Amino acid sequence: MTKRLKHFYESQQLDKDLIFHFFEEADKMSEKDYEDDLLKGEILATLFCEPSARTKFSPTMTSFKSAMLKLGGNVITEETIKELSSAFEAGSIEDTIMVVGKYSDCAIIKHYEEGTVKRAAEIAEIPLINAGDGRGQNPTQALTDIYTINNEIGRLENLKVILVGDLANGREVRSLSYLLAKLPQNKLTFVSPDNLKMKDDVKGYLRENKIEFEEHSDLNKILPEADVIYMTRIQKERMPSEDYERAKGKYVINESNFSLIRKDARILHPLPRVDEIQLPFHVIRYNPKVAIFNQVENGLYIRMALLKHLIGE
Amino acid sequence: MTKRLKHFYESQQLDKDLIFHFFEEADKMSEKDYEDDLLKGEILATLFCEPSARTKFSPTMTSFKSAMLKLGGNVITEETIKELSSAFEAGSIEDTIMVVGKYSDCAIIKHYEEGTVKRAAEIAEIPLINAGDGRGQNPTQALTDIYTINNEIGRLENLKVILVGDLANGREVRSLSYLLAKLPQNKLTFVSPDNLKMKDDVKGYLRENKIEFEEHSDLNKILPEADVIYMTRIQKERMPSEDYERAKGKYVINESNFSLIRKDARILHPLPRVDEIQLPFHVIRYNPKVAIFNQVENGLYIRMALLKHLIGE
Amino acid sequence: MTKRLKHFYESQQLDKDLIFHFFEEADKMSEKDYEDDLLKGEILATLFCEPSARTKFSPTMTSFKSAMLKLGGNVITEETIKELSSAFEAGSIEDTIMVVGKYSDCAIIKHYEEGTVKRAAEIAEIPLINAGDGRGQNPTQALTDIYTINNEIGRLENLKVILVGDLANGREVRSLSYLLAKLPQNKLTFVSPDNLKMKDDVKGYLRENKIEFEEHSDLNKILPEADVIYMTRIQKERMPSEDYERAKGKYVINESNFSLIRKDARILHPLPRVDEIQLPFHVIRYNPKVAIFNQVENGLYIRMALLKHLIGE
Repeated sequence: MTKRLKHFYESQQLDKDLIFHFFEEADKMSEKDYEDDLLKGEILATLFCEPSARTKFSPTMTSFKSAMLKLGGNVITEETIKELSSAFEAGSIEDTIMVVGKYSDCAIIKHYEEGTVKRAAEIAEIPLINAGDGRGQNPTQALTDIYTINNEIGRLENLKVILVGDLANGREVRSLSYLLAKLPQNKLTFVSPDNLKMKDDVKGYLRENKIEFEEHSDLNKILPEADVIYMTRIQKERMPSEDYERAKGKYVINESNFSLIRKDARILHPLPRVDEIQLPFHVIRYNPKVAIFNQVENGLYIRMALLKHLIGE
Repeated sequence: MTKRLKHFYESQQLDKDLIFHFFEEADKMSEKDYEDDLLKGEILATLFCEPSARTKFSPTMTSFKSAMLKLGGNVITEETIKELSSAFEAGSIEDTIMVVGKYSDCAIIKHYEEGTVKRAAEIAEIPLINAGDGRGQNPTQALTDIYTINNEIGRLENLKVILVGDLANGREVRSLSYLLAKLPQNKLTFVSPDNLKMKDDVKGYLRENKIEFEEHSDLNKILPEADVIYMTRIQKERMPSEDYERAKGKYVINESNFSLIRKDARILHPLPRVDEIQLPFHVIRYNPKVAIFNQVENGLYIRMALLKHLIGE
Repeated sequence: MTKRLKHFYESQQLDKDLIFHFFEEADKMSEKDYEDDLLKGEILATLFCEPSARTKFSPTMTSFKSAMLKLGGNVITEETIKELSSAFEAGSIEDTIMVVGKYSDCAIIKHYEEGTVKRAAEIAEIPLINAGDGRGQNPTQALTDIYTINNEIGRLENLKVILVGDLANGREVRSLSYLLAKLPQNKLTFVSPDNLKMKDDVKGYLRENKIEFEEHSDLNKILPEADVIYMTRIQKERMPSEDYERAKGKYVINESNFSLIRKDARILHPLPRVDEIQLPFHVIRYNPKVAIFNQVENGLYIRMALLKHLIGE
């Protein structure tokens, strides 16, 4: 029998059975094969706990809101801003979780501090979902990513997956690596500026799970062998500006190396993009080698499947 | 047969048939003659893309949210703030539109840059509606305005319409002028501080459409002949402070010139007001010569009619 | 027959009949004994009018949103920020209320200025509810508080209620005192730093209603006689920093004085907390002497009862 999740805060919680269970459910969602009032009367709270008032638009949050509404549920959106938190929040993530647990049936949390959602799950009365915790994880994006890979390439084994960009701070690429560790017989290659390499926690987990991986510095050289090229932005807000200047623009896909990518390979990106993919918009949209908008769409179906699992079952 | 809009980004898209079609539909909405689950399962995204985190309340946005809910649909509210956009948004309105198109069924966009919604409509997979684009247009307000004029005065021809205030930066007054160009046999008079005159694009369009217009500097002199006095605020945030000081308070309606306005004439204002209408609140609310709160209410019915047209038909 | 409220802006509007009417209704809500589409088609607007963009999360607002959705209604969330209000809001609370009245069926208002909601109610076309007005009141919290006291202690008479903390600026403690004035045969004790004493308007009202009260400076001395200990935070944002330093940490419940509290007594707190209750989280959550999370939950039922009364009846 398939395992049941109570919360979803990190990729390591999944196993192969559960992964493919979510794929089946997501397929049904994409075929409109679901009850549109499955979650009637249920309330999803989205909690945006960020260090400033400035960053607001999150594709992860937006897709969860849409997923909840499509299944007939309702959404309450809340924000707390760290700047003011000395007075209001100090040590009070527990209180916030208790309040939200009384007023909603599930909460999606985006938080500036790594580990917060896992910690909060210990006390929560309702299912919690991690929509990004500092430099930690964004596991629902990783599930979306491998669902997209499976749909686009037709398999989840014997894949050569290249992960490119800010591997030190990008929580999507961290969650994806942890998730790929559940699927042996794939090979990972990390390509990043020197100062933004994949961290040891992920590497250790891959070794434990006997997943083959390597680091490489010449993107163009390995592009022809890649099945999946996972591009990410340099996380400017998480480093000193001199580090950003050193790293930005170092690894990009543009019109000169795009032809090195095989026709049956796929470029993915969790968005938002900065300058990692320097191709005309019509190429990004219509060339089958770029799958990022399919990936966006798949995010809706995967999140519908997750909400059904966590609230509706 | 009446034309069908796919998007609605500027007044010029309308013609006389379509205008009166929307009037009929809005009438039905005001009489509660509509299916209250017409848009069940549909999601409207409101995108607030502003230069700062400070300006939030928009009557246009609020009325669209209400209109969507009244028709049984749902709303997702999103914001992006330009201040941070160097990292997150550069050149990515296309990405944002694609993401929103995957997660909703229609989007209302308020953007700091003129022309954005028209440009975005070229790639959008869902209907887009312009709720204000920089110094560009706010066409759903203009449709509300002429619906109000028609209801209040009983006709849309042989009208003398005076447009007063910041005609250079006010997108409502620009949209209204473009829309009145579709209705000949009316006469427009522009009254503005010297530094905030109506721009040549609008004037050129009026000439092409053979609409009579003039500029005038003495408001009180022409008030007695006016059928409609359309007041607007000086857009402080769009000009140097010395220009604002020069312009503010130059043209106002107050207790001394209110009596110059005929009993069958109407004052309109798209809100928010600053000091353009210096009358006691009970006069603004109850004197039939001031139609601004009827105008606010009509905004709901017109936007219900627009959502029905763009999503429900 | 029970009195009917049109708006709810201050505790003084309630009488004993109405209080117990709301208790009965809240009981039904807690037992899921309500029609889940009672408010179908109705729209609640939440208006957050704050001096800055930084404070966002309000348990009062969140519980109202949840209450509205649970009863089948819909919610529109709006914010206005005072910083920008010189241009947009000056003197225009009336306009805002008129706009909101055209686009929704009830409005919850949180405003930086005392008395705003009462003033707005004079012109509003829809029911208004005060969710906090500057140093004024938060009456729906007070109703939640006495509902909780009644549930926890089993009576609303012959109680000794201690109110602790920032009694000068805390609107919850002010609303609670006004409300307790409707229930004679209870005794109030105010414990606050010297610079943050309960104000004369409340004291005068208590005297008029012949409610016994006293001020006391030694919390530990009176803890053993208390039935209810109502803790509040020092409102840092409403005083000079030297006043805050003088007041903070002066009156707290911690492991050393917690044992002075009787087993059948209850600690309440309107949240958010800062450092007034220095007990381990599991004590706060599971020890029956601390009722703050029951109080949070009761807030939902009371607000459902209020929305039913103001919109649904």
